[in-house]
Amino acid sequence: MYYAGVDIGGKNIKMGIVDDFGKVLASTVYKTQMERGYDAILLELINNINTLCEQAGFEFDELSGIGIGVPGIVNSRAGLVMSCSNLQWKGVDLANDVKNLTGKPCKVCNDANCAALGEQRFGSGKNYKNLVFVTLGTGIGSGIIIDGKLFEGLGCAGAEAGHMGIQVEGDVCACGNKGCWEEFISASALVKQTKAAIEKYPDSRLAQICKDGISGKSAFIAAREGDGVAKGVVDRYIGYLTYGIIGLTNILHPQAFILGGGVANEGASLILPVKKMLNDYIDNNGFYPYVDVVGASLGDSAGYMGAAALVM
Amino acid sequence: MYYAGVDIGGKNIKMGIVDDFGKVLASTVYKTQMERGYDAILLELINNINTLCEQAGFEFDELSGIGIGVPGIVNSRAGLVMSCSNLQWKGVDLANDVKNLTGKPCKVCNDANCAALGEQRFGSGKNYKNLVFVTLGTGIGSGIIIDGKLFEGLGCAGAEAGHMGIQVEGDVCACGNKGCWEEFISASALVKQTKAAIEKYPDSRLAQICKDGISGKSAFIAAREGDGVAKGVVDRYIGYLTYGIIGLTNILHPQAFILGGGVANEGASLILPVKKMLNDYIDNNGFYPYVDVVGASLGDSAGYMGAAALVM
Repeated sequence: MYYAGVDIGGKNIKMGIVDDFGKVLASTVYKTQMERGYDAILLELINNINTLCEQAGFEFDELSGIGIGVPGIVNSRAGLVMSCSNLQWKGVDLANDVKNLTGKPCKVCNDANCAALGEQRFGSGKNYKNLVFVTLGTGIGSGIIIDGKLFEGLGCAGAEAGHMGIQVEGDVCACGNKGCWEEFISASALVKQTKAAIEKYPDSRLAQICKDGISGKSAFIAAREGDGVAKGVVDRYIGYLTYGIIGLTNILHPQAFILGGGVANEGASLILPVKKMLNDYIDNNGFYPYVDVVGASLGDSAGYMGAAALVM
Repeated sequence: MYYAGVDIGGKNIKMGIVDDFGKVLASTVYKTQMERGYDAILLELINNINTLCEQAGFEFDELSGIGIGVPGIVNSRAGLVMSCSNLQWKGVDLANDVKNLTGKPCKVCNDANCAALGEQRFGSGKNYKNLVFVTLGTGIGSGIIIDGKLFEGLGCAGAEAGHMGIQVEGDVCACGNKGCWEEFISASALVKQTKAAIEKYPDSRLAQICKDGISGKSAFIAAREGDGVAKGVVDRYIGYLTYGIIGLTNILHPQAFILGGGVANEGASLILPVKKMLNDYIDNNGFYPYVDVVGASLGDSAGYMGAAALVM
């Protein structure tokens, strides 16, 4: 059977036709142009699904369902987008609108949750029924899978682990909480931490490397070259990341954490120390089994693939 | 049908005969005397269940099952007590031993998880299928109910929310983590916070009240008398408590938090401000529904009542 998965972002909309085994038969990316408003976005979205079906070599009628991920607060049971500041949508009856326009089953969900589901069904979470997915991007996205199913909590905002507080006297976050995990482990936070280190050590190799611009990669690059200052930044960052992961393990004890987003592209130099610290902690407290930590494998496709999985 | 619920503690063993509606037909408390060793404790435990059945007016044969809560790491699926430092048990096949000795179905679980289940089935969590239970005692116990069922994670250690870190640069805890929530919100932590305030303000009403001894109640008593210093201690404590509750809401978004243990006996003066701060936060971020915060209602019986519910 074939399913359409759609990942609506503030800038781009990604979509694909996916089969039950996670094979992507056709896919496309195009500009959201959110200023067009909801109706225009919706009609083009359905048109583009039609086109993808053609490209995949079957009729739209044969499509079994449409799943959509939205970057906001979604009541997934009702298919309602409660609020989505990126798109300026509020109380939008998205799933029903799609159903009415296409005659197809439609489910809608928070985008980070879709990505979590995508990784669990088709990506590096394939071997796990219980996992926590965290994307280390500009902000933090997260999703929780329990017994093979997306766990959303009552608010369906997506498991917002990025707003778990890890510093009770910390800076106030836009969400109103203090010392949110996001403020320590997002790519933007890592850039800030790198900047602070450069100001303190302007003669370091790290400062040299960052002359033409600082990114979330800079500290990792300089650390690999043996720079002590950069190594300090990376170690501290890994400490912050592991700290939240240990907190989540004490609450949820999943089989695995899947790390996605830009910073996770650092691969083993990020993932292995996190895994070691986490499992040393579990060892110390005797509440086995150990927990795996792995990098996400679907990249930008995780969102629409997981959205498709919503209707499988 | 009738079930035996047993709550094994380091000092006392509480047990009761409970029916499907949570009516306690007979109950008893006696000393654990853990130095007797596992076999002696087990045999007396079964004898006492026999006696309680008699007291309740039926034969042991009519008992439908035995549930047991243990203060340690329990593999509840296997019925194994992995480790229990209070009783010095390690790798004890408790559920099978009880089955073999009695011919009754037996389930074993972490004690805090049993108490959570007790409150959810028969106590103040009765109206909720999704809740987080936290006991504010000498230490912190916690349990998570999702869709009416106990959620244990893979390690079955009990949802150890007390070891969620809330201060990334905080003091090292016995568990190896830093700045654990427990170190801020246990009754012992509240006593420490009260002591620190007294040292700083030896002329306060709080200091006066504490002359004959400090307890988790002292600050609440002085605050009710209008003492500013005590009010500061209470407000800060409530802030710590709410901080972790907001973190848990961002991850789990349950319908309710149930607060038990000594400090929760303060009732409305503790619970109402927590509830307000939590729901102001939810309001601010628009991820409704609101979350209830209520006091536990079963007291010391929650553990054995929940243990009985394991086999219902």
